[in-house]
Amino acid sequence: MRDELLRARAASRLALTLTSEQKNMALHAMGEELIRSSEEILLANQLDVQRAQDAKEPSSRLDRLALDKQRMQTIVDGLHDIISLADPIGEVLSAWTRPNGLYIEQVRVPLGVVGVIYESRPNVTVDTAALTLKTGNAVVLRGGKEAFETNTALIHALRKAITEVGLPADLVMILQNTNRSSIDELIRARGLIDVIIPRGGAGLITHVVEHATVPVIETGVGNCHVYVDVQANIDMAIDIIINAKTQRPSVCNAIETVLIHEAIAKQVLPRVSYQLARLGVQLRVDEASDMILENNDLVYEEGVFLVKQLATDMDYATEFLGLTLAVKIVPSLENAIDHIMRYGTGHSESIITEDIEAAEIFLQTVDAAAVYHNASTRFTDGYEFGFGAEIGISTQKLHARGPMGLRELTGYKYMVRGNGQIR
Amino acid sequence: MRDELLRARAASRLALTLTSEQKNMALHAMGEELIRSSEEILLANQLDVQRAQDAKEPSSRLDRLALDKQRMQTIVDGLHDIISLADPIGEVLSAWTRPNGLYIEQVRVPLGVVGVIYESRPNVTVDTAALTLKTGNAVVLRGGKEAFETNTALIHALRKAITEVGLPADLVMILQNTNRSSIDELIRARGLIDVIIPRGGAGLITHVVEHATVPVIETGVGNCHVYVDVQANIDMAIDIIINAKTQRPSVCNAIETVLIHEAIAKQVLPRVSYQLARLGVQLRVDEASDMILENNDLVYEEGVFLVKQLATDMDYATEFLGLTLAVKIVPSLENAIDHIMRYGTGHSESIITEDIEAAEIFLQTVDAAAVYHNASTRFTDGYEFGFGAEIGISTQKLHARGPMGLRELTGYKYMVRGNGQIR
Repeated sequence: MRDELLRARAASRLALTLTSEQKNMALHAMGEELIRSSEEILLANQLDVQRAQDAKEPSSRLDRLALDKQRMQTIVDGLHDIISLADPIGEVLSAWTRPNGLYIEQVRVPLGVVGVIYESRPNVTVDTAALTLKTGNAVVLRGGKEAFETNTALIHALRKAITEVGLPADLVMILQNTNRSSIDELIRARGLIDVIIPRGGAGLITHVVEHATVPVIETGVGNCHVYVDVQANIDMAIDIIINAKTQRPSVCNAIETVLIHEAIAKQVLPRVSYQLARLGVQLRVDEASDMILENNDLVYEEGVFLVKQLATDMDYATEFLGLTLAVKIVPSLENAIDHIMRYGTGHSESIITEDIEAAEIFLQTVDAAAVYHNASTRFTDGYEFGFGAEIGISTQKLHARGPMGLRELTGYKYMVRGNGQIR
Repeated sequence: MRDELLRARAASRLALTLTSEQKNMALHAMGEELIRSSEEILLANQLDVQRAQDAKEPSSRLDRLALDKQRMQTIVDGLHDIISLADPIGEVLSAWTRPNGLYIEQVRVPLGVVGVIYESRPNVTVDTAALTLKTGNAVVLRGGKEAFETNTALIHALRKAITEVGLPADLVMILQNTNRSSIDELIRARGLIDVIIPRGGAGLITHVVEHATVPVIETGVGNCHVYVDVQANIDMAIDIIINAKTQRPSVCNAIETVLIHEAIAKQVLPRVSYQLARLGVQLRVDEASDMILENNDLVYEEGVFLVKQLATDMDYATEFLGLTLAVKIVPSLENAIDHIMRYGTGHSESIITEDIEAAEIFLQTVDAAAVYHNASTRFTDGYEFGFGAEIGISTQKLHARGPMGLRELTGYKYMVRGNGQIR
């Protein structure tokens, strides 16, 4: 692997001085080549899908893996979106002259070589290559073995396109070895890889953080909450809870627990439980919530009934990523914040209230990448934030926090111009 | 240790909402208490110094460790400087409204709990506590055992002062255990410590990077170069080389290698070698330099003679941190850049030239925290950059690069205000 990483490092040096036009030409060529090669790519994809079917993989996994003409077009459209974004490289973040005459500029530059470890979705292969190329980085991809044939075909097309426009193909590489050992080698390649971005489940991310010597940007684990304050607009609260839980329950910015102020719980809980039951959401409730719900008829209508059980401490710490929602009644805003700080993962947290003062306390004191007042946590997303792209959502505090777009794939350096200054 | 870290974490939550006035009051009280307690502190320091003397520590180490009234006053003056700096917390880095009406603010916030591992200098204890408090962070210090008594007395005074103004003393903690094991526990306290900053030699930093699971900001290892281009102003080049090597050779922004374009080497090398020899600098030279110097009389005057030997590959990779300088003659700017990219540590690199085009190529393509045109590398420093403070010099690319002042001890979060938005 060392030889591959040295080639990526060499390519990244050449990429430092690419113009926006050169990078956009490469992205454009990548789109064209993907269309031209789409037959080979779809054939390769069929091999992967067939293998997954033979291995009796669940249909959700097959769906993530499978490509067709329309999905290929979506991928190419994504490339064109990235072309249209402004190039952040070269931006002067600040500039000043010192009393001794030194002129100091803080300039945005590429990070260098980015390592991305991900699982089965083939669109990630192209998206990631495009985002890193646009930001003047080289990328070393380590995809899952279930998408090996597809990724190989995709990368072949991308590298061919990059070469056609005269840039080094090694700006985009994928590791041929899809064993666990290739992850471990990649994340310890200090001096060759500048940052590792693991995109996957909590197991992968923990493994990477525990074993990496290269800096890591953690992404994606979200145990998110909505807190319904005593002065909440109840209709709004219900809409936001339903949206944040059910619009796409498998993603990291969906909520896992609702906290409800005790003074408003009797008004909120029966109504929202009915709506949740209609959408198939099961509840894990504390005793206070359980008592409120027991007073209601839990078979709402033909085929709609509430499934609930008492919540354990572990439930409050769990990212269900599905149609399960924990519920807890709290005596105060402070108590809600304490719960969030104890169980949250620093991803996205929302308060629903008409009380501006309570909202401000929540926004200031909840320590998370994105804190919301009267909005769904589902907006923590590069596209929803208006970044035009997303490489992941950081749940750590260094370098990048929350949605990461192009800017978050860059760093800076200081350029200092003098006329002979010494100390 | 876990209990201590939980207390630091709790204190850091309270610090999120401190006003600038509260933090400055605490810093002011810290200064007053240090003056009030200076007798106890100096007594404690004498114990440490005595122990170091008994252990026959070198005098440079004793000097770093020793405090006196004047050094105490310098430390207190440093606190007042930090009081006068602007508080970066709460700064809105950017703000925008989305088409759906969501108002998104990116706001500068504390990092949380900062762990700092350092060696013997007692001023670091106070400086670090002040910088982290000013930025709303809690700090867990892990000082060297040679300064244990001094640090204990200093921290006692600082915590007393913090308590006096009504803030939690646990904003500033020092680990009582000064064994290696306390480093290992600290750097693996994921979820309790938000960032580790190791301040020390290459051995400490490598150990931390290899074993940490908490994010690390690497500091300080500097294998820095001056490149004298073919079109250099020779007088300027010599002044800058002398300054960058000898003004303070033990620091990370001092240079370790001079690269000289072959077309100007005969004009530069004999003159600079004479000046270096007068200041006691020994050279490690390549064969081409050796031949140029052989043509000269190497005993310059009474007591001034050049000590040189042929450079090995290892010499070019070494941070001498003393009066040794490697020299190499290169055929081109590109060759100089290649050498720097191969041996440099991404700290500070300078080109001396009157050729603006060559300077721009150097500034753009040399990948280091600070790149200089016609100036000494010694300016890579928080004070020289005008930050008014410094917690270290980062040689990594994520989060912070180059001199780290107050801003580099902060992160950001997104505050999103809506009126019921859902996806």
